[in-house]
Amino acid sequence: MYRSLWILARSRRLVPAPSSACGPGVGGANAVPFQPPDAARMASRNSYRLEYDTFGELQVPNDKYYGAQTVRSTMNFKIGGVTERMPIPVIKAFGILKRAAAEVNQDYGLDPKIANAIMRAADEVAAGKLNDHFPLVVWQTGSGTQTNMNVNEVISNRAIEMLGGELGSKKPVHPNDHVNKSQSSNDTFPTAMHIAAAVEVHEVLLPGLQKLHDALEGKSEEFAQIIKIGRTHTQDAVPLTLGQEFSGYVQQVKYAMTRIKAAMPRIYELAAGGTAVGTGLNTRIGFAEKVATKVATLTGLPFVTAPNKFEALAAHDALVELSGAMNTSACSLMKIANDIRFLGSGPRSGLGELILPENEPGSSIMPGKVNPTQCEAMTMVAAQVMGNHVAVTVGGSNGHFELNVFKPMMIKNVLHSARLLGDASVSFTENCVVGIQANTERINKLMNESLMLVTALNPHIGYDKAAKIAKTAHKNGSTLKATAIELGYLTAEQFDEWVKPKDMLGPK
Amino acid sequence: MYRSLWILARSRRLVPAPSSACGPGVGGANAVPFQPPDAARMASRNSYRLEYDTFGELQVPNDKYYGAQTVRSTMNFKIGGVTERMPIPVIKAFGILKRAAAEVNQDYGLDPKIANAIMRAADEVAAGKLNDHFPLVVWQTGSGTQTNMNVNEVISNRAIEMLGGELGSKKPVHPNDHVNKSQSSNDTFPTAMHIAAAVEVHEVLLPGLQKLHDALEGKSEEFAQIIKIGRTHTQDAVPLTLGQEFSGYVQQVKYAMTRIKAAMPRIYELAAGGTAVGTGLNTRIGFAEKVATKVATLTGLPFVTAPNKFEALAAHDALVELSGAMNTSACSLMKIANDIRFLGSGPRSGLGELILPENEPGSSIMPGKVNPTQCEAMTMVAAQVMGNHVAVTVGGSNGHFELNVFKPMMIKNVLHSARLLGDASVSFTENCVVGIQANTERINKLMNESLMLVTALNPHIGYDKAAKIAKTAHKNGSTLKATAIELGYLTAEQFDEWVKPKDMLGPK
Amino acid sequence: MYRSLWILARSRRLVPAPSSACGPGVGGANAVPFQPPDAARMASRNSYRLEYDTFGELQVPNDKYYGAQTVRSTMNFKIGGVTERMPIPVIKAFGILKRAAAEVNQDYGLDPKIANAIMRAADEVAAGKLNDHFPLVVWQTGSGTQTNMNVNEVISNRAIEMLGGELGSKKPVHPNDHVNKSQSSNDTFPTAMHIAAAVEVHEVLLPGLQKLHDALEGKSEEFAQIIKIGRTHTQDAVPLTLGQEFSGYVQQVKYAMTRIKAAMPRIYELAAGGTAVGTGLNTRIGFAEKVATKVATLTGLPFVTAPNKFEALAAHDALVELSGAMNTSACSLMKIANDIRFLGSGPRSGLGELILPENEPGSSIMPGKVNPTQCEAMTMVAAQVMGNHVAVTVGGSNGHFELNVFKPMMIKNVLHSARLLGDASVSFTENCVVGIQANTERINKLMNESLMLVTALNPHIGYDKAAKIAKTAHKNGSTLKATAIELGYLTAEQFDEWVKPKDMLGPK
Amino acid sequence: MYRSLWILARSRRLVPAPSSACGPGVGGANAVPFQPPDAARMASRNSYRLEYDTFGELQVPNDKYYGAQTVRSTMNFKIGGVTERMPIPVIKAFGILKRAAAEVNQDYGLDPKIANAIMRAADEVAAGKLNDHFPLVVWQTGSGTQTNMNVNEVISNRAIEMLGGELGSKKPVHPNDHVNKSQSSNDTFPTAMHIAAAVEVHEVLLPGLQKLHDALEGKSEEFAQIIKIGRTHTQDAVPLTLGQEFSGYVQQVKYAMTRIKAAMPRIYELAAGGTAVGTGLNTRIGFAEKVATKVATLTGLPFVTAPNKFEALAAHDALVELSGAMNTSACSLMKIANDIRFLGSGPRSGLGELILPENEPGSSIMPGKVNPTQCEAMTMVAAQVMGNHVAVTVGGSNGHFELNVFKPMMIKNVLHSARLLGDASVSFTENCVVGIQANTERINKLMNESLMLVTALNPHIGYDKAAKIAKTAHKNGSTLKATAIELGYLTAEQFDEWVKPKDMLGPK
Repeated sequence: MYRSLWILARSRRLVPAPSSACGPGVGGANAVPFQPPDAARMASRNSYRLEYDTFGELQVPNDKYYGAQTVRSTMNFKIGGVTERMPIPVIKAFGILKRAAAEVNQDYGLDPKIANAIMRAADEVAAGKLNDHFPLVVWQTGSGTQTNMNVNEVISNRAIEMLGGELGSKKPVHPNDHVNKSQSSNDTFPTAMHIAAAVEVHEVLLPGLQKLHDALEGKSEEFAQIIKIGRTHTQDAVPLTLGQEFSGYVQQVKYAMTRIKAAMPRIYELAAGGTAVGTGLNTRIGFAEKVATKVATLTGLPFVTAPNKFEALAAHDALVELSGAMNTSACSLMKIANDIRFLGSGPRSGLGELILPENEPGSSIMPGKVNPTQCEAMTMVAAQVMGNHVAVTVGGSNGHFELNVFKPMMIKNVLHSARLLGDASVSFTENCVVGIQANTERINKLMNESLMLVTALNPHIGYDKAAKIAKTAHKNGSTLKATAIELGYLTAEQFDEWVKPKDMLGPK
Repeated sequence: MYRSLWILARSRRLVPAPSSACGPGVGGANAVPFQPPDAARMASRNSYRLEYDTFGELQVPNDKYYGAQTVRSTMNFKIGGVTERMPIPVIKAFGILKRAAAEVNQDYGLDPKIANAIMRAADEVAAGKLNDHFPLVVWQTGSGTQTNMNVNEVISNRAIEMLGGELGSKKPVHPNDHVNKSQSSNDTFPTAMHIAAAVEVHEVLLPGLQKLHDALEGKSEEFAQIIKIGRTHTQDAVPLTLGQEFSGYVQQVKYAMTRIKAAMPRIYELAAGGTAVGTGLNTRIGFAEKVATKVATLTGLPFVTAPNKFEALAAHDALVELSGAMNTSACSLMKIANDIRFLGSGPRSGLGELILPENEPGSSIMPGKVNPTQCEAMTMVAAQVMGNHVAVTVGGSNGHFELNVFKPMMIKNVLHSARLLGDASVSFTENCVVGIQANTERINKLMNESLMLVTALNPHIGYDKAAKIAKTAHKNGSTLKATAIELGYLTAEQFDEWVKPKDMLGPK
Repeated sequence: MYRSLWILARSRRLVPAPSSACGPGVGGANAVPFQPPDAARMASRNSYRLEYDTFGELQVPNDKYYGAQTVRSTMNFKIGGVTERMPIPVIKAFGILKRAAAEVNQDYGLDPKIANAIMRAADEVAAGKLNDHFPLVVWQTGSGTQTNMNVNEVISNRAIEMLGGELGSKKPVHPNDHVNKSQSSNDTFPTAMHIAAAVEVHEVLLPGLQKLHDALEGKSEEFAQIIKIGRTHTQDAVPLTLGQEFSGYVQQVKYAMTRIKAAMPRIYELAAGGTAVGTGLNTRIGFAEKVATKVATLTGLPFVTAPNKFEALAAHDALVELSGAMNTSACSLMKIANDIRFLGSGPRSGLGELILPENEPGSSIMPGKVNPTQCEAMTMVAAQVMGNHVAVTVGGSNGHFELNVFKPMMIKNVLHSARLLGDASVSFTENCVVGIQANTERINKLMNESLMLVTALNPHIGYDKAAKIAKTAHKNGSTLKATAIELGYLTAEQFDEWVKPKDMLGPK
Repeated sequence: MYRSLWILARSRRLVPAPSSACGPGVGGANAVPFQPPDAARMASRNSYRLEYDTFGELQVPNDKYYGAQTVRSTMNFKIGGVTERMPIPVIKAFGILKRAAAEVNQDYGLDPKIANAIMRAADEVAAGKLNDHFPLVVWQTGSGTQTNMNVNEVISNRAIEMLGGELGSKKPVHPNDHVNKSQSSNDTFPTAMHIAAAVEVHEVLLPGLQKLHDALEGKSEEFAQIIKIGRTHTQDAVPLTLGQEFSGYVQQVKYAMTRIKAAMPRIYELAAGGTAVGTGLNTRIGFAEKVATKVATLTGLPFVTAPNKFEALAAHDALVELSGAMNTSACSLMKIANDIRFLGSGPRSGLGELILPENEPGSSIMPGKVNPTQCEAMTMVAAQVMGNHVAVTVGGSNGHFELNVFKPMMIKNVLHSARLLGDASVSFTENCVVGIQANTERINKLMNESLMLVTALNPHIGYDKAAKIAKTAHKNGSTLKATAIELGYLTAEQFDEWVKPKDMLGPK
């Protein structure tokens, strides 16, 4: 049953999720307005109910499932505005976790009626149906406690509603005693972080890179026979095929995926069961393992319980590691995008070896200008990922004692990088890579004029004489062949036999 | 007249702007729903009009003022979703710029009717009234051309509407020929970047830091007479007053403001008038200076025209510089917030010298726990700013030839840092600093037990003997006085005369 | 035979290498003066011989084996001074590579007399015997070509000398035609980078981390029975054992090694055989594979030939990846060192749970002060590694076309990080970790006073009542037990039964 | 008298200092062997004397002036080897500071004989004559205490020697009681940091940038009349002059100097007088101000006493700020160097607009290849500076309480960046910029073929028609003029009148 919810959630990339319900528009930044479930049962926007936490009573909007602690956080942390809200993948991950925990708690004796209501409410959270009920920003407590409580409150109230109770009554489903049972923010938030990161990697990042890899590989094959001038130090060098050049990009993207996958084993480790400081106080033997297994089943990803819960709460090295893998990928993608825009530069005063797809008008003042805009989006994304990585690194290095309290900031940046790299890879592939054409006329012209073909003479006449030919030809603006003969180093026949670009593409 | 609009815009921090209209809630992340002007005159949501750019026709939603190039961008750049939209301060800055340009263009002969309509429409953009019409994400072309065109299209269509024309007809107000007159994306986008950065610095960042500075200064004075143990290397050291300790924080925040202000002269330089590559092609002599003057008037900030437009388009060193000033401020704030949470650690097993305000329940599992959550939000913000700075640095270093094409990414990060630092400073001040109390009982106890008071003996008995006293007392768990006498280095009277904490607070 | 040379080289950490021959001293920064081989045959310091490159003649000191291109580089790149010289591990790696290449070239027909002389000279380079002949700084050409030529020249001249020829004559051993045969800087420099990085990881970094891991593990076991207060958010939390706390550190260091090892497969890939642009021009089929095999044999590490030479020259993602793994390790080590210095803070006004070894006087003014200096060295190293990582990232992202030209800078930073992390781990272990003692008296006192023991009551009386007990006790400065009874929530017997720290160390 | 010493020290850049006495060679990385003063009076290398600190006795080499605490540090911190030693500029700065302090201490009553001996010994340190006596690495205690003691010991022993005493006797000049009088490591080390940074900025960094600025300005004027194609988005754009293009670089370097100078006021603030925690305990009223004045006199730089000593010890925001200014400069220099290598790319398959000086053979395999190696050194330096900046930032953010203990690491990186940027600017200027020639033939050809000249038609025929001309000409490979006429948009005469590159270089 849950699987179908999950599959629904997977469609996010095709049908914009309610989570992004921020004004209608066109294209990628779109969203459809959110329809709260059972909205009719809720009071109008302007009415409030009273809820309380250990600090006292607070007014809660009647059309919201969250409670006092969530409201209190919005009052205490007015930092950054709506774009800074806790990323939706974290909220969904919490839905998955809370569902799993409820199932396991039922195994350990939680009233099935309560457990079941929690599961159903949690499923709605996991499916993104309640996104509007999570108003908290990332810049809250560094443990993410307030978001854990936001989740507990929403699930509690939604479950209460399902069971016909009164919102805010904490009966029959208490946010702490039932929804958070056997849990602490200290273990649930890192668990949600890892679930969210793993899902984003599998749903967005790796598919995006795979798509880019396949497109580059296709181009590498398509261009296998096109011999072109190589460039080292940005200067003319010996020839290679355009296919060979692209094969380097293919390898980079292939390894980007390898690197990200290599980081995942530590991401698959879940802190759940560690509770407050990692000991597992107030939970049950076996709880940790069972929750990890449930989460693995719900997500289809190989989550396991973390072998050491102290490390799992106090450090987030696994996220720094994953961020590092994305940082390396960003370097790869920046290199590729830079190459493609320079190779496609022109149309008349650049290198001009590639013809890039024209997607939009390039200039508001220069008519007819077409720019490598997809490369630009990609390189900007790469720079952002490098910056995000430093933020994650600084946060990761500053944990103290039993808890790292840079959690929300760290997961925000990790998810940001994963989403941007994945989305940009798709955009770059669809709007640029697949449409790249080789400008063979230009490629041939440049290759044939190149002085670096002289390198083929090294084994025959030695480095020093070859250098003299190249320098003389460069000085006189003449061809290598004419110069070589003029200098008396070889005959025309020898030149033609020894200097064949197609023989310079590999070892002998 | 415009001034009132501007003043309206200034109120953003008190009344959430329509721009953040992403689901209602409570507190800082709130917003009220957007009411489009003249909405009645627009067609229903489901109807489209046809607009065209040089690439062809496209369907544009009838309830939107943007046109074909905006729609095309949303199709080509599906990267990151709504949270990645061009920051509203950039949009507002564009409104200011386009208004200024229209005024100057009128001086140079633009039809006053057209100019006036552009001005009125631009004022609406500047006031944030049309925020919903800017759906483009940051991850577009690196010149920001698409956002410049988005602005041109919105102003054009809104002006057309005001003049009774047909949306999308480009008549009588053409987005390129009139709204963008004497301009290019290449100079308008950097101009908008600088306006937005300067406004955010003045509206959010500096006021936030000033508020924090004043609160810390108040505490420094309040705590002026409280003598406490100093700590160096995290270890016990000689005493100082709590007021002296806080005076260091005051100085740090004071210099944070000094540093940010020191970066502003380069930010006040506007690229407008450089047009496509910095030459000022297709604009008029004097245009650059006049626009800068108009913008200065509209904003009340000392903008001037950039002395070298080539630099102003091709490099964004000024933003790297401002980001660097914020990076330094982030270091300052992280230090302060770290100190405060450690000095306030406890309640029973920490240093316990400060009593921090209790703002919310601290734990979902540990009842009664109160955490230094404002310090945590602040340190997370600091880490983010350090990361953002690297993204800005990478972007800033990668400009090529006549244009840097990391513009949207750079300004996004600069504005992000400014907003976060400003907001976090306010939150930290209001919810933490002003409520800090000294735990004088604890402070006195620790101070009196300290072994480092022995330092006062250096001038009397020399470093080596003083060291022996301290080490012996530490080993035996005894007091300095008893140990000093026991070792025969001085008398009880001498000790009492020489070791007075209140005499150790300054030079003699 | 070579193995013994190699083993000699391995002893570097015990007997300082000649490479660091920069003034005698005491301890780690020491060195013994270099004795040039066959020094008697060299002319006095003040005499010069003439050598030439394709740019002309240059004076070369007679007591140096390098030649004209090396001299030319010293003239053109006066940047940074002697501390900026190419790291010795790169020079040694070149020795290994040149030896391997000579062997393979002999297989393909190179005159055995020449090949053998090259091998013997290369062995001397690999063993660090000729370190003084490599004066070039890192800040040269970005391909490292000048260092490759420096190596070619030194080996050529040393081989010539062995064969009784004249230094600088290029006969019978030519630096390009023989020593560099089948090679290019473009493939040899990245090959040397990978060899150097792999050796440093295996010789310095991993052994250092292993040593630290083992010491921490020993402490974790030693402290297994010591129950102490936990701290989250830097504030008092529920108890755990000191052994559990240290087990988190053990896990972090264990994973640090896992992460570094996970990056090595890409480091083991060698570019040799790619020559100028990756095609393998001017080399022979099988050369690449044979060289990789030879290098693997010489080093005992599983080097293979890179599957794609274009990627191996144009990108250095593998170094960014390795740097990323070290960056993650730096986060881990900073966390551990921070914890230890805070837990060891005092002696009287800190947390005081750990007693750290006293290694040196801590203050030039405060007698008797002892500071956690090893923690400070470690955290400084961690910060440096994070910075180095950004340098590597920026370099790694800026390759163009067939060659990344940030090679010397990248390998310098990677080697710097590896050496610092490895050395600091050893120093931290030997001078701090192994000597850490638990201050059990202090630990017990803090633990027993803690209010957070109330958490054990959650399952019995619920979160809200437990919170009330804790808050009341805190307010009144009373014990949990007295407060709980006073509030009428439970009996003294129930309290004693339910609140047992030793029952709070794990799930039930 | 001292002035002459100082002037001697200033000559470092022309005559390599003894400090870099690490093996002779040629060029920038050179040094002459160190001759210890009064060497004859010292015992042979193999003999030791016994010295003691508060931890016990230690063997000290007889030919060294340092004492027990220095030896102890070398035993406890075997991290990184000789290249990691405390930078010489810090040692020299300590010499200046200790001299100034001795003068002021004499004013306050220190025995003139002792004071004078300290001054003479300190002068030798300031002049770099005793560099070999400072073996400690950066990776020591984070306060730099061990280096402060190293300085105290060396000056003490050298002064003792001058006064005919016995090395290690601490009589008549005690390292703590006399040399360190009225000082603490906590204020002396930051003082030395600021002196060293300021001197390096004035001696190396600013002169280097000024030289580069002047050379670029010369080129900008030289190229003022050369009209060339502009490039935005790496693509063809409207024309500008090569002089205009270079004027952007001139502005960037000019502002680099402005930015660095803007950071100096905080660097000129000295912590001296703050002693242990900033209070000035054990010093005298007026000491701080007098020392700052002396240092200002000795260096010729406007040092003042820090207005708040607590900030000056506990934070090093001023160094983060200066590092940030250098980071911005690095962005500027990377942009300039990138442009120059791309504009100089070729010789036949690149952009080819600039002819760069040929300084050395470019390839070990490709004969005749010349590479933009100075650009590569510069961009590598830029990447390093960006990395160093992150290290400085991380260190700067991690101070705790009354002391930041990342001091040695921070100053190492700041000095590294300053030296590299300064040296690289000189090298880049002398070996590249001054020799740049414009390839006018190529520049003219590209400019005349450009399609972007069509932009000049915007005011005459509108953007849309102009776009059509450009696109049609591009498609057909025809000229703009022919296409424009063919499309019937204008006459040949109109085209010639309206499209004049020299009229496109500015506003009208």
